[in-house]
Amino acid sequence: MAKTREIPRIVIQRLPLYLRTLMEIYETGDITSQELGRRVGLSSAQIRKDLSYFGGFGKQGAGYDIVRLRDALRGILNMDGDWEVALVGVGDLGHAVANYAGFDHRGFRVVLAFDNDPAKIGREAGSLVIEDVSRLEELISGKGVRVAIIAVPPDSAQGVADALVKAGVEAILNYAPAMLRVPPDVQVQHIDPVVGLQSMTYYLDSR
Amino acid sequence: MAKTREIPRIVIQRLPLYLRTLMEIYETGDITSQELGRRVGLSSAQIRKDLSYFGGFGKQGAGYDIVRLRDALRGILNMDGDWEVALVGVGDLGHAVANYAGFDHRGFRVVLAFDNDPAKIGREAGSLVIEDVSRLEELISGKGVRVAIIAVPPDSAQGVADALVKAGVEAILNYAPAMLRVPPDVQVQHIDPVVGLQSMTYYLDSR
Repeated sequence: MAKTREIPRIVIQRLPLYLRTLMEIYETGDITSQELGRRVGLSSAQIRKDLSYFGGFGKQGAGYDIVRLRDALRGILNMDGDWEVALVGVGDLGHAVANYAGFDHRGFRVVLAFDNDPAKIGREAGSLVIEDVSRLEELISGKGVRVAIIAVPPDSAQGVADALVKAGVEAILNYAPAMLRVPPDVQVQHIDPVVGLQSMTYYLDSR
Repeated sequence: MAKTREIPRIVIQRLPLYLRTLMEIYETGDITSQELGRRVGLSSAQIRKDLSYFGGFGKQGAGYDIVRLRDALRGILNMDGDWEVALVGVGDLGHAVANYAGFDHRGFRVVLAFDNDPAKIGREAGSLVIEDVSRLEELISGKGVRVAIIAVPPDSAQGVADALVKAGVEAILNYAPAMLRVPPDVQVQHIDPVVGLQSMTYYLDSR
């Protein structure tokens, strides 16, 4: 699919929320932008504006066809097949990621897991055998894996990111509470529970 | 601080990103909306518009005073003290949450941890002793805890959310890949790695 690069990043970041919401609707038929907005927590105007970047999904007055919009969003987000993912760091969090039920049918499959702890290397994480992190570059570039998840302590995160970039990884999901410096053509997203918590405490009355 | 409720939720959700970015800057002095935008990944116009909801932080042409803006955002987000947090579910993920280094100095402190597994109850998670989930309502309402984190398997998430709401919790961070139905005055945010991953794969060339 040809893509203009001018669509605001903030719009792109909302598309997975729309897709997730549509996947939770088991009915077929149409959904109005009002109803989709109510479920996602955004205004109907925002949703119509966001989706208008990608052409006309809606029929005037009839809303969006759920199945068609879902399939279109999957295409836009490059979800037509599974992306192979490398996981680095198999402590408590890494184990949770390796066993995460939410990846199923949503376009991602963890195919490599690394740790630097000799006691963990060779053991299992989910359905994988934990590899020595010294083999990271060899195994990731050998498989052509382009997406990775960092679940190491914050002090180790930058070194891991550097190795991942060297191995050819282009998108990094970072669970470590640490900023990462990467080349401009590498994507980084943070999983930061504090950001989620703070955006709720705004709404709580002061103590 | 008096608050109008008319500030769009999407603006509120960006404030923690601004705060996190400002906390990563160790210098004092001013920061332009361009530089803040570059670090956060948003346009300078977006940042100026978002911050204008809360009054004038910037001096025309001089940017924002880093320390003043940081303190103001902490106030807006009700970060003037630590919020006590209850954690439900102490599997791999729950242990990672209990030990998460990123909570320090960012306004949240896990003070209660619950599980339903007799083998875990009475054992330690981080600096806490794991409590029986049957005591959830008693302990949470007794302490007046208003914020909770769900880290249980997806099938158990709704039941836990119901119990948390009954105990008086007003804000729930949900790691389980499951939708939660809660009353309209209860906030819910999801931690969903797939949303982060999908917003990056958009930018990857097709395979």
